[in-house]
Amino acid sequence: MIEVEVKVRADHSKIRPLLEKIGANKIGVEEQSDTYFSAPYRDFANTDEALRIRSLGGQAVLTYKGPKLDKVSKTREELETPVDEATTAKIFRALGFSEAGAVRKKREIFRAGEVIVCLDAVEGLGEFLEVELDVEDEKDLESSREKLFEFLSQFGVDEKDSIRTSYLEMVLGKKN
Amino acid sequence: MIEVEVKVRADHSKIRPLLEKIGANKIGVEEQSDTYFSAPYRDFANTDEALRIRSLGGQAVLTYKGPKLDKVSKTREELETPVDEATTAKIFRALGFSEAGAVRKKREIFRAGEVIVCLDAVEGLGEFLEVELDVEDEKDLESSREKLFEFLSQFGVDEKDSIRTSYLEMVLGKKN
Repeated sequence: MIEVEVKVRADHSKIRPLLEKIGANKIGVEEQSDTYFSAPYRDFANTDEALRIRSLGGQAVLTYKGPKLDKVSKTREELETPVDEATTAKIFRALGFSEAGAVRKKREIFRAGEVIVCLDAVEGLGEFLEVELDVEDEKDLESSREKLFEFLSQFGVDEKDSIRTSYLEMVLGKKN
Repeated sequence: MIEVEVKVRADHSKIRPLLEKIGANKIGVEEQSDTYFSAPYRDFANTDEALRIRSLGGQAVLTYKGPKLDKVSKTREELETPVDEATTAKIFRALGFSEAGAVRKKREIFRAGEVIVCLDAVEGLGEFLEVELDVEDEKDLESSREKLFEFLSQFGVDEKDSIRTSYLEMVLGKKN
């Protein structure tokens, strides 16, 4: 599965009424606590990969993200499996991986047609809007990306607002 | 958790009546299909570690085994978490790990007091007997190992019969 994703800075108090206006449904709220790992043998910052354990309310998911596949969105391969959080962290530490950083956020999730909309309030970074489409086939990437930017135009957002820097990079104070 | 474990070659048809005689309870039968991974940055055969995904009847477990902690048994740290099998294999491949080999076996599991007894019929290798005790504290390793060899003496097995070579190493044709 490939996740086509666009992220922008956004004032949630301005986005909420617009979401309501277009009939978006709130489908969940998650308190997400993410721990990112560094590999002992390659630099994920250079290879543009990420390995993360996300904890959300007693459950945990291990996620691998491959390199971004284009220059304007955050489209990339994502692989996810449920895991036991503490043991999985111990396994990666035993394998020589180390903790690269942590990101904590409150994520409100909405569905608007086929688009997933996330209002993220990230500890230490502020408020963001993320929109997502899941794509099975690489040939649909561009059309999906166009759909997302068309969707975002309703909120007064355009391509130049797109942020490709990850929350982790922002937390670590890196520049894109 | 540390697993104190002793493995020996054994003819199951001779072990079964003895297990019955000492009142061991059969607690399960598993068809285990194990895939072992190699790391791109260190040789698990040299470091005496193992990383494995075990599939058993639709469920899967990721296991890391640390180096053996003594010279006569297979005692080592074990870390285990339930995972989605196919996705976890994809994650490790994406991280640069590769499949080192596979072991398939039928394992019948018995409990005799605090000892777990496994009758393993391993594809291509034959029949084995494994006995196990789980230990919380490293100071109990030696006494647990002694308990296991005392337990095994009932089956006419002693320390010199102990095999420390893993099934994977045997499958790959390595010598201990």
